[in-house]
Amino acid sequence: MIIVMKLGAPPDQLAAVEERVRQAGLAPHTIHGTERNVVAVVGDEREVDTDFFEVCAGVEKVMRVLAPYKLTSRESQVAAATVRVGDVEIGGKAAVLVAGPCTVESRDQIVATARAVKAAGAKLLRGGAFKPRTNPYSFQGLQKEGLELLAEARAETGLPIVTEVMTPGDVELVASYADMLQVGTRNMQNFLLLKELGQQKKPVLLKRGMAATLEEWLLAAEYILSQGNRGVVLCERGIRTFETHNRNTLALAAVAAAKLETPLPVMVDPSHGTGRSDLVPAMSRAALAAGADGLVLEVCPDPAKAVLDGHQSLSCEQFAALVREVAPVAAAVGRTI
Amino acid sequence: MIIVMKLGAPPDQLAAVEERVRQAGLAPHTIHGTERNVVAVVGDEREVDTDFFEVCAGVEKVMRVLAPYKLTSRESQVAAATVRVGDVEIGGKAAVLVAGPCTVESRDQIVATARAVKAAGAKLLRGGAFKPRTNPYSFQGLQKEGLELLAEARAETGLPIVTEVMTPGDVELVASYADMLQVGTRNMQNFLLLKELGQQKKPVLLKRGMAATLEEWLLAAEYILSQGNRGVVLCERGIRTFETHNRNTLALAAVAAAKLETPLPVMVDPSHGTGRSDLVPAMSRAALAAGADGLVLEVCPDPAKAVLDGHQSLSCEQFAALVREVAPVAAAVGRTI
Amino acid sequence: MIIVMKLGAPPDQLAAVEERVRQAGLAPHTIHGTERNVVAVVGDEREVDTDFFEVCAGVEKVMRVLAPYKLTSRESQVAAATVRVGDVEIGGKAAVLVAGPCTVESRDQIVATARAVKAAGAKLLRGGAFKPRTNPYSFQGLQKEGLELLAEARAETGLPIVTEVMTPGDVELVASYADMLQVGTRNMQNFLLLKELGQQKKPVLLKRGMAATLEEWLLAAEYILSQGNRGVVLCERGIRTFETHNRNTLALAAVAAAKLETPLPVMVDPSHGTGRSDLVPAMSRAALAAGADGLVLEVCPDPAKAVLDGHQSLSCEQFAALVREVAPVAAAVGRTI
Amino acid sequence: MIIVMKLGAPPDQLAAVEERVRQAGLAPHTIHGTERNVVAVVGDEREVDTDFFEVCAGVEKVMRVLAPYKLTSRESQVAAATVRVGDVEIGGKAAVLVAGPCTVESRDQIVATARAVKAAGAKLLRGGAFKPRTNPYSFQGLQKEGLELLAEARAETGLPIVTEVMTPGDVELVASYADMLQVGTRNMQNFLLLKELGQQKKPVLLKRGMAATLEEWLLAAEYILSQGNRGVVLCERGIRTFETHNRNTLALAAVAAAKLETPLPVMVDPSHGTGRSDLVPAMSRAALAAGADGLVLEVCPDPAKAVLDGHQSLSCEQFAALVREVAPVAAAVGRTI
Repeated sequence: MIIVMKLGAPPDQLAAVEERVRQAGLAPHTIHGTERNVVAVVGDEREVDTDFFEVCAGVEKVMRVLAPYKLTSRESQVAAATVRVGDVEIGGKAAVLVAGPCTVESRDQIVATARAVKAAGAKLLRGGAFKPRTNPYSFQGLQKEGLELLAEARAETGLPIVTEVMTPGDVELVASYADMLQVGTRNMQNFLLLKELGQQKKPVLLKRGMAATLEEWLLAAEYILSQGNRGVVLCERGIRTFETHNRNTLALAAVAAAKLETPLPVMVDPSHGTGRSDLVPAMSRAALAAGADGLVLEVCPDPAKAVLDGHQSLSCEQFAALVREVAPVAAAVGRTI
Repeated sequence: MIIVMKLGAPPDQLAAVEERVRQAGLAPHTIHGTERNVVAVVGDEREVDTDFFEVCAGVEKVMRVLAPYKLTSRESQVAAATVRVGDVEIGGKAAVLVAGPCTVESRDQIVATARAVKAAGAKLLRGGAFKPRTNPYSFQGLQKEGLELLAEARAETGLPIVTEVMTPGDVELVASYADMLQVGTRNMQNFLLLKELGQQKKPVLLKRGMAATLEEWLLAAEYILSQGNRGVVLCERGIRTFETHNRNTLALAAVAAAKLETPLPVMVDPSHGTGRSDLVPAMSRAALAAGADGLVLEVCPDPAKAVLDGHQSLSCEQFAALVREVAPVAAAVGRTI
Repeated sequence: MIIVMKLGAPPDQLAAVEERVRQAGLAPHTIHGTERNVVAVVGDEREVDTDFFEVCAGVEKVMRVLAPYKLTSRESQVAAATVRVGDVEIGGKAAVLVAGPCTVESRDQIVATARAVKAAGAKLLRGGAFKPRTNPYSFQGLQKEGLELLAEARAETGLPIVTEVMTPGDVELVASYADMLQVGTRNMQNFLLLKELGQQKKPVLLKRGMAATLEEWLLAAEYILSQGNRGVVLCERGIRTFETHNRNTLALAAVAAAKLETPLPVMVDPSHGTGRSDLVPAMSRAALAAGADGLVLEVCPDPAKAVLDGHQSLSCEQFAALVREVAPVAAAVGRTI
Repeated sequence: MIIVMKLGAPPDQLAAVEERVRQAGLAPHTIHGTERNVVAVVGDEREVDTDFFEVCAGVEKVMRVLAPYKLTSRESQVAAATVRVGDVEIGGKAAVLVAGPCTVESRDQIVATARAVKAAGAKLLRGGAFKPRTNPYSFQGLQKEGLELLAEARAETGLPIVTEVMTPGDVELVASYADMLQVGTRNMQNFLLLKELGQQKKPVLLKRGMAATLEEWLLAAEYILSQGNRGVVLCERGIRTFETHNRNTLALAAVAAAKLETPLPVMVDPSHGTGRSDLVPAMSRAALAAGADGLVLEVCPDPAKAVLDGHQSLSCEQFAALVREVAPVAAAVGRTI
């Protein structure tokens, strides 16, 4: 941590800052500049907030040297580079396709989708039972019944299932059905949910918050890892920007940047990441080319009849075509589908 | 709702769209343009997602005519223009000052702060017992003990208390101590929390999500109102932008725009809204001038010793000076403090 | 400047960085941390790009300690705290109102507007002769004829005139008519235009780029100041964010933050800053309360007949009402109108 | 265009709006809704600003049905799908690599780079002679001498050259040397520059403004096309967002979305788009997978000695490695390098 003193800050303010550094169990190392003094803090700064020094009289600003996460970092030996979901490995040579409808609507819908996406190459089935909806009057999902239908689809096809959990009180229930629990974009900083997920054993698909920095996303993973659950898979799903031609801006450089910071697998959701099914194939190819460990895709038998988010869903035929299209791109970067 | 058909969409696609409009209980009214056809949807469109039509073959885009919230709207008779917290009225002639520390740290700290802010003119006491922290290694608040200390400070000073609740499972506990429950920026779209808050009776201070549009903010209020709780106060606290000179960009035009849309009171939090105590006085004056119904401010006896967020906190003396400074601005717009 | 070395960077990389610091005429001061080494750079870092060190092997990142502008800074004695436009002083006790139509359309329009805004309290007349338009098929302004009509309005009313210049080749022409030259938001980083404006004597109204940070805005002022022209007035006019309920997000905290960094006067344009005339009065009050040295407002005799931007324009009656409304707010912060 | 009337707007306001539609040469078609009336405007709305109707009494908002550009659109027959630069075709089967240093620094540097990038597979040479710099004290390029050095490098290698022009007054000079003229991100809305470029014959590489929407970007192309120059190539180079881990957020979905809107070729600049050479290979692969017609890359013999932007530059060896890496990805989407 580097503490920059204000121009003309008197010696007693500098001394007070140095003392506060020592109080935090760290060592101050002051450099006397031509215009300003700066105090370099030597020691493990990650458990100290920058606020702790910013409040001192005479301090202009405080800059971190180290990223504030530990277990998530490439430099730790904790975070896993591969995560198993049922018998599927995420982060290995094979890029993993996760497919299914936005929302579980009926037994027929989910079983038919599961069969179709499995036949086309999907390794995991996704589907929403608990749905976070911006509008209180919108359909909120079949909830427990949805979980049961997902389990039936798994029984029929053998595909492990991924589904969202929205609140700590539902973790036990959802974990009793799902093979992987998803944290949605609006819950990436629902810290009590993250802690609860860290204390159970099922792997977690952690979607990036739509306004979260890379650092905040990795700190959210750190919440789960720090509670003992090492099965975290990151998922880029687009961020909110000024642009309006699609719902979100899919930030594929974040995939490459995350992989430089952490060994955790990183997947991409081009369906939410663009909000437009006509952009999904191009962004699926791009995601795999950028190094993503897999794709999360919305697929349903008849998008035009979907209750929700049909606009961004692929039909089963479109999904099969997409698999054929992305396979050579995966191969070009040394991956299989 | 206006459904814009693609250039050259054939008559059967148009007919299918018209049929789907009727299925939704609405009436289609088609205008044949020189380049494209558009279908105007007549009826109450608010319970229908735009997705419902966007998925149809031949549709280019769908645009809403009405805002999707109802009870929150100026046009309804439901949302209250004033909200009572204990014996304090928010939304009346008096602009209400809510002050207190970021985090409750000790009995001495919270009682001393409560006395000081009351003496200076605050009408409500704020303080965090449950703290959402980006970093899992940061202090997470005193929790239940913090609630008890807040209650002691209320007993000593008579100030009603406002404190944050982070998860549905804690609502009953927090509501048993607090006079007003705060929803933090990261929970503005924690829909299960909003519903739970809608089903109890204490008023709610609903902070704007840092990446939420005005419409999404009002829909979050609608979640609470639709469950029967009409005591909602909105609070602008800064949005996330590209700018880095302060933590957030305080969007005061959103205060004025919200007031055109809804009768609900709107407060402003300049402490989080700027993240810098040296900008708080100017933004407090500006907020009242813009028409805010009150201010939410971080104040603690010794910001330089605060465990958290000292950088944006005012000392008790600075708060007293701020009250003297904002009073003439409030008067200039016809308000008292 | 602080140069952070990578974990495990070998001694020869550190030595090479130290040597490069010396090459730049600065002194390296290395601190050996527990995890990483950092090199503090002692000397005037402002003429060195961070790139100069970021490219060296073994460097993780480079952080500036000083802001990169000099003349614009509060610490210099160069930037002026008041700027004269004709006989009007900007930055003094009186907050200055600049008013007029988006675009000069006719002699009658501009003279009538000038008379009306003068009567209501405006001290400067604004109006566009050269118009930057997003759409090539939109009206681009009367150009030289517009300048002549502005000069006629000045002759009739005595109000000095402010108008935009879009390109270096037009500076001489525009300066021969105008009392103050405006740089629009899309030209804030038109560096050749800034240089040209720095080499002439008329004062400059420098609007903030819609995606410019505070630092970039002050560096744009530095371009003008560094060429010898000290008459720069900053103007906040809203930034581009994810929010869609108004065209721009007016960032009033930037006014207060700019004033902490530089003595230059800072004005606010609530018309472009919101894009909605129904938000202009509230934001005008807020801007003055925040400490702005004046307001730039779009006013025209009949907004409903304006060729451009009528949506954000006030009528002359609305402007007169606004002046009555903002006067007590100005008084509340020790200013006159 | 759809004009939404306010709730309760009286019949005379509706009639006035209908009259104003007719004044604009268009036909009003009014739909009487259950809550509001809307007026659908039939005819070519593209030369009318939405402002023209938004100012009318009783109007709540105005929504466009058609995109405001014409020649740029897929629906026109004007915009070219391939653009020739010297003997190189952009937009054909071969993805085109444009490579070279940020800034031309010396004859040795530019000629050595040109030879190296040609040997590795580049088809066009880029290099800055006129440099837009945020900081007035930074190096601004060799200007005319830089153009001469570029011409020498072309003479030595046969590679056509691409270089930036910053202001209308320099177009003739730059066009006399360059084979393709680049518009930088800060000049995407320098409309007088766009017009000047539209009136000469050399093709134009139009970088996206860092805060420009897709629609604004295509309107900037429309400026050039509307003056008669059909040789426009779009170039995505990252947008400005809240994210700080890299300089810009490379928006690859904009490539796919642009291609749905316009036949114009679209290239990608991963060097500026990320600002980090360690992210450039992944984003180069992703860009081609997304359908880009080529890449614009910063390459210099010794990035660690570059005067500018070395941080994002590849060495010649890294560029050669990148070409080997992207070739199979290009092949996977049916392209050659």
